[in-house]
Amino acid sequence: MQTPHGPFAGRTIDDLGRDLRAGRTTAEGLVRDALDAISRIDPVLNAFVSVDAEGALAAAREADRELAGGTDRGPLHGLPVGVKDMVMVAGQPATMGSRHFDGYVPDTDAVCVARLREAGAVMIGKTTTHEFAYGPTGDQSAAGPSRNPYDPERMSGGSSGGSGAAVAAGLVPLAVGTDTGGSVRIPAALCGVAGFKPAYGAIPADGVFPLSPSLDHVGVLARTAEECFLSYGLLSGRDVPESEAAPRVAWLDPTDLYACDPEVLRVAAEAAGTTEKVVFPPGVADAFRAVYATIGMTEAADVHADRVAEAPELFGAEVLDRLRNSMEVPAWKYRRAVAEREWLAEAAKELFAGHDVLALPTVPLTAPPLFQREAVLDGRQIGVRAALLAFTCPWNVVGFPALSVPAGSVGGLPVGLQLVCRPGDEHLLAAAAARVAGRA
Amino acid sequence: MQTPHGPFAGRTIDDLGRDLRAGRTTAEGLVRDALDAISRIDPVLNAFVSVDAEGALAAAREADRELAGGTDRGPLHGLPVGVKDMVMVAGQPATMGSRHFDGYVPDTDAVCVARLREAGAVMIGKTTTHEFAYGPTGDQSAAGPSRNPYDPERMSGGSSGGSGAAVAAGLVPLAVGTDTGGSVRIPAALCGVAGFKPAYGAIPADGVFPLSPSLDHVGVLARTAEECFLSYGLLSGRDVPESEAAPRVAWLDPTDLYACDPEVLRVAAEAAGTTEKVVFPPGVADAFRAVYATIGMTEAADVHADRVAEAPELFGAEVLDRLRNSMEVPAWKYRRAVAEREWLAEAAKELFAGHDVLALPTVPLTAPPLFQREAVLDGRQIGVRAALLAFTCPWNVVGFPALSVPAGSVGGLPVGLQLVCRPGDEHLLAAAAARVAGRA
Repeated sequence: MQTPHGPFAGRTIDDLGRDLRAGRTTAEGLVRDALDAISRIDPVLNAFVSVDAEGALAAAREADRELAGGTDRGPLHGLPVGVKDMVMVAGQPATMGSRHFDGYVPDTDAVCVARLREAGAVMIGKTTTHEFAYGPTGDQSAAGPSRNPYDPERMSGGSSGGSGAAVAAGLVPLAVGTDTGGSVRIPAALCGVAGFKPAYGAIPADGVFPLSPSLDHVGVLARTAEECFLSYGLLSGRDVPESEAAPRVAWLDPTDLYACDPEVLRVAAEAAGTTEKVVFPPGVADAFRAVYATIGMTEAADVHADRVAEAPELFGAEVLDRLRNSMEVPAWKYRRAVAEREWLAEAAKELFAGHDVLALPTVPLTAPPLFQREAVLDGRQIGVRAALLAFTCPWNVVGFPALSVPAGSVGGLPVGLQLVCRPGDEHLLAAAAARVAGRA
Repeated sequence: MQTPHGPFAGRTIDDLGRDLRAGRTTAEGLVRDALDAISRIDPVLNAFVSVDAEGALAAAREADRELAGGTDRGPLHGLPVGVKDMVMVAGQPATMGSRHFDGYVPDTDAVCVARLREAGAVMIGKTTTHEFAYGPTGDQSAAGPSRNPYDPERMSGGSSGGSGAAVAAGLVPLAVGTDTGGSVRIPAALCGVAGFKPAYGAIPADGVFPLSPSLDHVGVLARTAEECFLSYGLLSGRDVPESEAAPRVAWLDPTDLYACDPEVLRVAAEAAGTTEKVVFPPGVADAFRAVYATIGMTEAADVHADRVAEAPELFGAEVLDRLRNSMEVPAWKYRRAVAEREWLAEAAKELFAGHDVLALPTVPLTAPPLFQREAVLDGRQIGVRAALLAFTCPWNVVGFPALSVPAGSVGGLPVGLQLVCRPGDEHLLAAAAARVAGRA
């Protein structure tokens, strides 16, 4: 990693909790460490749009008082957390990465933020989002691009780019993101951390600014899958029990979805560590991409049409152009996509026949240079945005849990392995991730 | 009426059944009478696209044998029925009014046709439909326009124009139609007969060619509302019990929906015979029209897009033009219309607060000349298509039962009164119609 590390690099949530309860540190101390690291390192990374030093210190002191008084809220008690700037934190600016919301301050916490507070976590600041979360590159935002800790001239990925960079650089141990086509998993993969997009609706999206409501998921980023599942459990209220059975993991050949860098493919497949193989039945991979595009564009246009009509000048050029294209999607094609989505839900279940977890690369390439939109991948001219989304978006279409875990590196840049399961099999997903981590 | 009458003019289904069971006529005799009248009168009206003389005579003879043998299938036993050419009759051509289906012969009955056969009815032929049922004027069809028995230079209305003209001219006592925005009620009103569009799904649409599936209803046309409800009961399997309470009927001011000819308004209001009045809350009337247009166009484009792409030359110019416009409806607007439709379902229920039945004109004008597309109505320049649909389409948006009954005439042309109820209140609708008929 080229940028300096913050205080949470190499520390797990468990480590921190032990230190805290053993009196080796305090919540206030952790927040001060985080604030200090942010002030030193974040000018390079731009992972944070805004930091609430005063509020975080007050919350940390209260957390310390609670612990001293015998009130222990559990594993996140007293730990600083970054929250993507699409998610409302009462009293803190929420810009959605857009000039449209310059100066906007919500007065209510999103449900996921309220649950974090109940769990004792300390909201330290808002992390940079791609403008309105409408882009997987993380480099278009009213506050400027978030940057990759492994190379600040490269993308963090997006749209939860700030959350990915903040965790990777050790500025916070945990960050909240949103994921409509891969926006948690893509920055996790490009920045070398873990990111979990749970089943659709498992973490409530109330108080989260929408991009494409039927595809939007709230997720978490942390250093390890284990920490993601721990936080997921607290945010969803759903247990992830230890799995007694070994998960049956198969490699899902991703090349029907999109071209893939051969080295990325090799590193991910090695990390997956299975000889079982699954391929998409004819037409399914193409349908996933097409249905994702049609439904995602239509819902985004629905969310933003009035802003496009009334104040187009407040958008960045790229997002405005994309929204205008989205407004042209014909209704009859959308209707067909909605019908096809039901068929894909069945097709996705069938992919899992005989397997609990499918493994594939999270993204087909390593972090591209900032602002790059065209590249060559496996000998083919490709669009960077389409490439970044290609392996993650199918699991938004069907709402299946999908996790990205660090799998190794290519040319000094992280590679992510994506693990996917059916809703209800999260414990098997966690077990599969633990085996990948154990082999690493 | 300017055209000669067929044998069923002035005869009710009850009359015919009594004659049949008293031996004063036979099913074969009724079919021969119908065939004879069709051959004499239909060259002027073009109410039928095809007639199945042989099949109808065979079915009639079988009906006679059954009656003679003691098998009585009920009130429709042995009676000839016309079936709109959007509805499949096994072994009979189904053109949908389109050259796309020239020569097409389905091998299975639509569910409603199978139910008619079980009830003993005799399918005598297919009635003219506006091309693919996509038009309320009834004058665009591969087989030529259906014409109004009151003045063959005027529209029958549509899209079930042949069914309306056939019943009005006494060629059959009963005809099946489909109604997506008014296609049963509009020809009933313009031709001076009764037409009933039941609640959404009450008569199954299986085996009926779609126009806009979420708006499509199967309905019936007959001389009187009573005969419509009788047939509806047999086709839906739902009883319409005699109402013990008098229905509470209110006049629904239609002028928020569209301009209305003052004489038509006066005649319809007089027939309604109530002093109770209801008006649309602000925005509701406009929303009905807009939601109908957006959803109707989108679904029609979905049904026909491949035909438009592959064989546009087989469409008539007007329907092709309309379909091409429909293919341009933006998906985000459709999405908003789908959401608004849910709101309208609530708004529609509230319109009925304190009332069982709402009464309004079926259409705001009398039958226009064939092919007329622009007219002056109450001093305003209007589009004929939009005017014809304006008072009927709201009840397709919400799927409420709606009936058109003869209300009188203006300038020698029929005026229809529309009566609407909530699903489940069909017995009160029937009672309201009986009171209108009793006053006439």
